Amino acid sequence: MIRFECDYAEGCHPKILEALQKTNFEQTCGYGLDPHSKKAEELIKKACENEDARVYLVSGGTQANKVVIAQVLRPHQGVVSVEGGHIAHHEAGAIESSGHKVVTLKPENGKLKAETLKAYLADYWADDTHEHIVQSGMVYISSPTELGTVYTKAELSALHNVCREYNIPLYLDGARLGYGFASKDNDLTLADLSRVTDIFYIGGTKVGALFGEAIVFNGDKGLDQDFRSLIKQNGAMLAKGRILGIQFEELFKDNLYFDISRKAVEQAERIKKAFLSKGYKLWIDSPTNQQFPILPKDAINKLKEKFAFLIWPDTGEPKLITRFCTSWATKDEDVDKLIDEINKL
Amino acid sequence: MIRFECDYAEGCHPKILEALQKTNFEQTCGYGLDPHSKKAEELIKKACENEDARVYLVSGGTQANKVVIAQVLRPHQGVVSVEGGHIAHHEAGAIESSGHKVVTLKPENGKLKAETLKAYLADYWADDTHEHIVQSGMVYISSPTELGTVYTKAELSALHNVCREYNIPLYLDGARLGYGFASKDNDLTLADLSRVTDIFYIGGTKVGALFGEAIVFNGDKGLDQDFRSLIKQNGAMLAKGRILGIQFEELFKDNLYFDISRKAVEQAERIKKAFLSKGYKLWIDSPTNQQFPILPKDAINKLKEKFAFLIWPDTGEPKLITRFCTSWATKDEDVDKLIDEINKL
Amino acid sequence: MIRFECDYAEGCHPKILEALQKTNFEQTCGYGLDPHSKKAEELIKKACENEDARVYLVSGGTQANKVVIAQVLRPHQGVVSVEGGHIAHHEAGAIESSGHKVVTLKPENGKLKAETLKAYLADYWADDTHEHIVQSGMVYISSPTELGTVYTKAELSALHNVCREYNIPLYLDGARLGYGFASKDNDLTLADLSRVTDIFYIGGTKVGALFGEAIVFNGDKGLDQDFRSLIKQNGAMLAKGRILGIQFEELFKDNLYFDISRKAVEQAERIKKAFLSKGYKLWIDSPTNQQFPILPKDAINKLKEKFAFLIWPDTGEPKLITRFCTSWATKDEDVDKLIDEINKL
Amino acid sequence: MIRFECDYAEGCHPKILEALQKTNFEQTCGYGLDPHSKKAEELIKKACENEDARVYLVSGGTQANKVVIAQVLRPHQGVVSVEGGHIAHHEAGAIESSGHKVVTLKPENGKLKAETLKAYLADYWADDTHEHIVQSGMVYISSPTELGTVYTKAELSALHNVCREYNIPLYLDGARLGYGFASKDNDLTLADLSRVTDIFYIGGTKVGALFGEAIVFNGDKGLDQDFRSLIKQNGAMLAKGRILGIQFEELFKDNLYFDISRKAVEQAERIKKAFLSKGYKLWIDSPTNQQFPILPKDAINKLKEKFAFLIWPDTGEPKLITRFCTSWATKDEDVDKLIDEINKL
Repeated sequence: MIRFECDYAEGCHPKILEALQKTNFEQTCGYGLDPHSKKAEELIKKACENEDARVYLVSGGTQANKVVIAQVLRPHQGVVSVEGGHIAHHEAGAIESSGHKVVTLKPENGKLKAETLKAYLADYWADDTHEHIVQSGMVYISSPTELGTVYTKAELSALHNVCREYNIPLYLDGARLGYGFASKDNDLTLADLSRVTDIFYIGGTKVGALFGEAIVFNGDKGLDQDFRSLIKQNGAMLAKGRILGIQFEELFKDNLYFDISRKAVEQAERIKKAFLSKGYKLWIDSPTNQQFPILPKDAINKLKEKFAFLIWPDTGEPKLITRFCTSWATKDEDVDKLIDEINKL
Repeated sequence: MIRFECDYAEGCHPKILEALQKTNFEQTCGYGLDPHSKKAEELIKKACENEDARVYLVSGGTQANKVVIAQVLRPHQGVVSVEGGHIAHHEAGAIESSGHKVVTLKPENGKLKAETLKAYLADYWADDTHEHIVQSGMVYISSPTELGTVYTKAELSALHNVCREYNIPLYLDGARLGYGFASKDNDLTLADLSRVTDIFYIGGTKVGALFGEAIVFNGDKGLDQDFRSLIKQNGAMLAKGRILGIQFEELFKDNLYFDISRKAVEQAERIKKAFLSKGYKLWIDSPTNQQFPILPKDAINKLKEKFAFLIWPDTGEPKLITRFCTSWATKDEDVDKLIDEINKL
Repeated sequence: MIRFECDYAEGCHPKILEALQKTNFEQTCGYGLDPHSKKAEELIKKACENEDARVYLVSGGTQANKVVIAQVLRPHQGVVSVEGGHIAHHEAGAIESSGHKVVTLKPENGKLKAETLKAYLADYWADDTHEHIVQSGMVYISSPTELGTVYTKAELSALHNVCREYNIPLYLDGARLGYGFASKDNDLTLADLSRVTDIFYIGGTKVGALFGEAIVFNGDKGLDQDFRSLIKQNGAMLAKGRILGIQFEELFKDNLYFDISRKAVEQAERIKKAFLSKGYKLWIDSPTNQQFPILPKDAINKLKEKFAFLIWPDTGEPKLITRFCTSWATKDEDVDKLIDEINKL
Repeated sequence: MIRFECDYAEGCHPKILEALQKTNFEQTCGYGLDPHSKKAEELIKKACENEDARVYLVSGGTQANKVVIAQVLRPHQGVVSVEGGHIAHHEAGAIESSGHKVVTLKPENGKLKAETLKAYLADYWADDTHEHIVQSGMVYISSPTELGTVYTKAELSALHNVCREYNIPLYLDGARLGYGFASKDNDLTLADLSRVTDIFYIGGTKVGALFGEAIVFNGDKGLDQDFRSLIKQNGAMLAKGRILGIQFEELFKDNLYFDISRKAVEQAERIKKAFLSKGYKLWIDSPTNQQFPILPKDAINKLKEKFAFLIWPDTGEPKLITRFCTSWATKDEDVDKLIDEINKL
């Protein structure tokens, strides 16, 4: 069985294991104050071309989202997300467990449009019972989105402008950020991202690390006040913080993070092309590492014999949406095998 | 600088790195449902001699405590701990952030006595305003304690009996559990522990792992209902759950967890002996990997030149309490060097 | 200015003031354990024809909802509501502030259909990632709904059956319960309601009391365990609990609650008829004390000179939805004046 | 049975009932935005001689504490209180249920000393692990305290200075504030209080109202931003907010609040004197409406036949601490009867 069902099926990039090996008996202080964590933070700030950024390493995406949102919101505030956003649907109520509503708006192609946000906020403040309604205290988006689409610089700027107008931070969940940068639709650098958001995180778990995400605060200095206490309180601070530091050091020296992402997206494009060549339609034209062909059930059954991938619930229709993921770890030969089978369908 | 300041200064036991290397390109499903996690759970159940136990792997101690306590308590309930217990003092309000008070009782040698607990609970229920007071819904202890002391089987049984009388679970934080088992004061096996507590966790972070703790539910089957959802909600579920599985597999096959703990405690005993031989007193006679000599300031200053260790705040007294920790990673030669310097004081 | 904008514009029914006067210097114990609270609870149980019911008096509707939901749910659970349900929209995030998501489903005429609920729950449990999604732990409905519609006995039974199938309680918010019973669409008694829900509350604030709601638990005995502690914790327990007791005593002796509700609904029907006679359409045909005529802007402007009522946001359409409320306190002469003006439009 | 067990055994001052009667059919808008609430707020600001104060009326003391504390603290912060403070002990975990630890310090005569606070805060910030420890984000005191003692102007100024040094607000719970002002130990006016605290509340429930407390923000303007949303979220906002407004209007016009308090304290002093004359000792020399004679068990049993009062748990000692409360409603003749019985002991 070859797995294309997710982008976290393997361990980590060999360079990371090598670095863990090499540093294993170094003695460092704990809780992310060690030299490796400091070095990783510096490398990330440099990649962001932002000396004023503050970088924090945590062990997972749900934690990153939960801690950042708890950090920013006051008790009566909620966070805006698109319907189907990861925090709105797939984090077991993590945000609500911190006391905050996830306010959902309709997406377009998985993305929140600036107009949608602006109209919502304008209506909220025009409503004279708004004291009785959850106030939006920040905006959450992800890029790539749950549908694999990416925000353009113009789209992010427009959103950021609305956020600034209403004085609320814009936060971008970059669980698959590398695959976004590697996309043909991408027109952003990390430095751009650092200008058009207030906070974002660089996903490690899905892009080469064993686990770990790097949260970057770009916005005003007050935004991350005492953030380490919130990380600790939420169980997101590793005693051996260096393990996160070592991983991000590897990912951000010599461009590794971007190189492995590019490879994964190239493989995804090959898979997409194979499906299209056979005349299958796509649910959405994703330019990143997730591909969503719509397949007849017999094709699905055939592919299931050799490959693992996600299949949408059977609604009685003859064709179903599927998802095939590549990652930094996807082997060329496995993609070849998949394409062979697609061609044989 | 040689570090004796904590038991998480290094990476992990080489066998774990080896296993991570060997399994790195295996493809598994995520979120702790993979074969390595399953295998680790089986090994732990076997070590507990308890086929009915349920084992869950999470990434850190604060998470383990936070998730277990959130799982068990109802909103009006709090958790009993000794004053100075880890959840009471050093977790940045993690328990309160889930809505629950930590009710603190006086310890003896760092331990909660069954009599103290019983008297407290009896008084609580006798108070006719108890509806206005936080109800104790579970009891938290740690062994080894923050002072390095360990509970005996009799002490745990007595506590467990009080808990059963009041129908509340007894939970043991085993962040340093291995060092407890290796202590000369220990009269417990893991199987005993599984009988005299309802829930406990086996600490990996401080005993050989990169990170990770194994939570064991021994008590009634309802106790861990939907526990995986709470793990997810609290950001304690790794996408690549196998990384935890692989680590605990290594620790619990071939007795590794116990062997490396024994070594650490032997080294701590050597250090203790060296201090005692020089006529220094101990703050507490700890039989585990933490040692607490009371040292004059000039001795402290001398040792600080070459070694890192904890020093209690200066209260103006001529002598201060200090803490020296060993761990699975402590090298004989480093202990030798420390003892040399102690002898030269 | 005559107010038809809400059903809480006046104080309370004169009999309540009289009773407060008469009992003012009685000395009682506090926190709802006094004889008046006990008497009120007995009267309500009798009205419910349910000796096993447990009744609790709290001071407001948001409190009732917040405390009941916090009582029932475990941390990973949410409460199902229709979109636009009071807890989903108009309680400033009260439910989320207790850690729980409000899961919203599409209503029909403001009501949750059993089929909608069943389909949602079936899909949830069929989804093999459901551990990552908030679990529905109870169902919240209100009757009358936010649109003034009422549930029939058959609709409630159908919902209750789905709830029982999934082993989750059905909770009915009865902020305007009296007006529901007085509706021509009603086929329920309080005794019926006590059979087809697990928990409901009888609204006092909007039906004759100064403030106060009576929560009734019909379901299994464990459901309200330690509920008084949760009431206290949420600030919903009055020191002088008797004030709530005295009010519900008055409302539930001699049928007062039902009599004053009937009067209010009769007046609402008169107002509806006046609008219909003039050819205006209704947004929804509400059989209770809230009426929703759709009016041209000039009619609105004319009526606004003498009457207060709610007007939906101006969307650029020539006609807007409005809401006119009656209550136990509405005077015949004020309704006459309104009808006069309607006729003059 | 004559009750001296608490200060909330009766209804309310007759003038309040009269005002409720007189205003009963006035129509007002809801949620505390009505003219009576506005008038009450003005009267209180005037009594505080503080035009910049912001006043909010809520329905109970636990609510006042819970909402104010939730308003001020960030997630990693706790509130400092003395051991035995009302929020620390008698509010069923209300503060923790909002996510915040109550950090307790030792009192003197029920009061928090500025030196104690300063030492604690200095130690906290000197501790280099303080990120792992709950940060103190505000200070809670009550005056009168749980022991009936009152803070002097000098004591409050000293506390306030420490708070300002650490940039955290000082909050005073004035559940029995009137009885404090009426005390012979008092050297404060309401205007003074408004200068030496950042937030306080004026208790109505125990001082003449049916229920209700008036929260006053004196400190910087940001402190109460969006406070009405938090009031709503916590269920502390009455739909008929005017009921609170009407009550505080009565209490603060013509000095009623102070006059009725004075009477209660005079009666308490008479009771104290009677006990002292008979040679009984006091647990604490309270200058307010709560008196704490230490009585032999036979005296207790004798008095219990005719009077209700609190008795501390029987610890086996021959004498027990008791508490006798007076209030605005205490009748001279009832005090006479009590003194008669004391004299007969």
